[in-house]
Amino acid sequence: MQRTGKHSNLADEAIARCQRLACFSEDEGGTRRTFLSPAIRACHREISRWMEPFGAQIRVDAAGNFRGFYPGEQSRSPWLILGSHLDTVPNAGAYDGALGVVLAITLLEALEGRKLPFGIEVVGFSEEEGVRFGAPFIGSRALVGRLDEEFLNHQDEEGISVRRAIQEFGLDPEEISRACLDADTLGYIEFHIEQGPVLEELGHPLGVVEAIAGQSRVEFTFVGRANHAGTTPMHLRYDAMAAAAEWIGAVERATKAVPGAVGTVGKIEAKPGATNVIAGMVQLTLDVRHRSDEIRTEIVSDLIRKAEKISERRGLTLQHTLLLCQQAVPMDGFLIKEIELAIRKAGCVPHRMVSGAGHDAMILAEKVPAAMVFVRTPGGISHDPAESVIAEDVDKAIECGLHLLDQLAASPVFQKRKNRA
Amino acid sequence: MQRTGKHSNLADEAIARCQRLACFSEDEGGTRRTFLSPAIRACHREISRWMEPFGAQIRVDAAGNFRGFYPGEQSRSPWLILGSHLDTVPNAGAYDGALGVVLAITLLEALEGRKLPFGIEVVGFSEEEGVRFGAPFIGSRALVGRLDEEFLNHQDEEGISVRRAIQEFGLDPEEISRACLDADTLGYIEFHIEQGPVLEELGHPLGVVEAIAGQSRVEFTFVGRANHAGTTPMHLRYDAMAAAAEWIGAVERATKAVPGAVGTVGKIEAKPGATNVIAGMVQLTLDVRHRSDEIRTEIVSDLIRKAEKISERRGLTLQHTLLLCQQAVPMDGFLIKEIELAIRKAGCVPHRMVSGAGHDAMILAEKVPAAMVFVRTPGGISHDPAESVIAEDVDKAIECGLHLLDQLAASPVFQKRKNRA
Repeated sequence: MQRTGKHSNLADEAIARCQRLACFSEDEGGTRRTFLSPAIRACHREISRWMEPFGAQIRVDAAGNFRGFYPGEQSRSPWLILGSHLDTVPNAGAYDGALGVVLAITLLEALEGRKLPFGIEVVGFSEEEGVRFGAPFIGSRALVGRLDEEFLNHQDEEGISVRRAIQEFGLDPEEISRACLDADTLGYIEFHIEQGPVLEELGHPLGVVEAIAGQSRVEFTFVGRANHAGTTPMHLRYDAMAAAAEWIGAVERATKAVPGAVGTVGKIEAKPGATNVIAGMVQLTLDVRHRSDEIRTEIVSDLIRKAEKISERRGLTLQHTLLLCQQAVPMDGFLIKEIELAIRKAGCVPHRMVSGAGHDAMILAEKVPAAMVFVRTPGGISHDPAESVIAEDVDKAIECGLHLLDQLAASPVFQKRKNRA
Repeated sequence: MQRTGKHSNLADEAIARCQRLACFSEDEGGTRRTFLSPAIRACHREISRWMEPFGAQIRVDAAGNFRGFYPGEQSRSPWLILGSHLDTVPNAGAYDGALGVVLAITLLEALEGRKLPFGIEVVGFSEEEGVRFGAPFIGSRALVGRLDEEFLNHQDEEGISVRRAIQEFGLDPEEISRACLDADTLGYIEFHIEQGPVLEELGHPLGVVEAIAGQSRVEFTFVGRANHAGTTPMHLRYDAMAAAAEWIGAVERATKAVPGAVGTVGKIEAKPGATNVIAGMVQLTLDVRHRSDEIRTEIVSDLIRKAEKISERRGLTLQHTLLLCQQAVPMDGFLIKEIELAIRKAGCVPHRMVSGAGHDAMILAEKVPAAMVFVRTPGGISHDPAESVIAEDVDKAIECGLHLLDQLAASPVFQKRKNRA
């Protein structure tokens, strides 16, 4: 069936390109691209091939980020960054990250050589997922000047440091400061698959991200007394599993009661962990996210109190350790409004939403106005080979992106905004 | 402080003997005696040393059970079996099993050569815990004729079969039938630590076991949908952990509501098992025990229905597999009454109780009248080096045992009872 979208050829080509990038992998029969692997180099080569025809200036910065620059009307024009990340999780899909890089290039192609009052730099971040070094955002950290000595000493499982990985790829870690954003950067816009089911449920192709949620991660340990499952009557037990279960119920109820909050217990271990032994210890993790840091920390405090009460009533003891407390990051208000307008011009409803996942835009926002457009993700499925996009939604994303560039090109206010880079 | 119990010397000696047996171990610095290990042979040698002075006839049967026979008044007298098991769990205490064997010998010593109208055979069962072959009761199965070809082919983790272990110990598997009980066996009486907190809570040194509870073990799998903990709103989740937690709460409530029932979820695994991923699958085990098979199976059916309802309401699927369905085993009514009387004569309250754990008496009861006396277990702690007994309670156990032997010696009814051996 022939599709009738305004940019259906470009959309089909963008999807084909994402699928082509998915073939560059460290693993046979699945997609996996970690920081500065040979598969990343193959991606860079392929993307260069797409960008060279319209005269982009291409480099790979010292943090391994692909950077393709499309100049503005004047040699001293400021510039806008469009992009996303090129690394993937193991056994990945084709769109998480890649779609944002590919769409940035598609938008440049659609300009057909037309220059804007600002340049556009396409960035394919080298590392967002955190797979190789257990720490995410290596690529975007370099752009905001946070790839410091300490971070460069991080080692992967084979004992190779970030620094050495950079050297082995043929890059110079001493030049990382040259990867930094400078004061001429107008902002950062990232297209990304939603990786959740919200847009699908609402029937909207595109969403505009208002904020990236803050996260708290806490590890809880309920300590009771291991005992014989047959010889210990119910009223003489100190069952860590029963306590943990009661609390998991409380986590679900407490987070359901707060609009926009999510709370998850995803990991659990019971010890000794035998069918016929009452659990003496249960260790589990809590992950809470919300756009408001105040609400998030209130939820966490409430859940700690609940765990303490449950433990006290049952004669158990409780330990808890904060693993992560990451503040929420609002996206740029001006860009949000411009994206809303562009989505409307593309004939869609601009659903405002909070990203529950972290993204490079969260890091870039430390220095420059940043914003994100989410693309509907069928079934909310990501980090899986079944990850997909709907071709019509990609049409709409391209249409939205072109309207957005036109709007920004017509906005002297935008072109004169100050950033902190 | 000098103790004043009737048999405090014998009790102290019995405790010292249990502690001496605990030194015979496969592990340095801890007690571990599995089926036909060198440590078991050392036990046999030691126990023989205790029994030879009063003219007991000693053998080790082809299933590795220690058997010491103290004849009755007449050469053709029937006989009573007293005993328990000599094997242990890893990192064991000194009393689980050993106490029953040691007390049997103590009672014979206390007879000071006096003969009874029945002989007494002391049996130290070779294997009750099931550690080496993952299947318990090897010793007592031999006495009831259930150590068949199939069982003899069971292999341990090193691929050594029960048969070969028997041969390597210097015994002949072809002679296992000679280990069987015969029609002259009057019954089996086992002293054993309670391994639970009930007698301690009630303040009673001794208990009489009315029945060994039946057991059901069922594995449940809640299957939901793994998803991103940040991007999946609460109302669009199929969270297997939340479902499992709700059901664990139901297990606790349902079993608490039925007197004498115990229900335990001791083992749990969540997949993928990451802090930031909603659990797509949770697998856990249920262990339910009760003296009534009807009540037990009703509880299990009810909990399966509850799991199904929870799964249905949450849009999950449920799988469940029966791992074990072991019927309850009542102890012999006549012996229960005689033990009650003997406990009373020893100055204690004869608390009737159900054993939540399996014991050799459960197997012997298939063929002969069987009964058990429980000895209070401080803190209910067993299967641990901290396992202990109170010396005064051991006094009382010896006193109870001697009254019991006198009662049975004076009972023509007992001496003429038919069994199924």
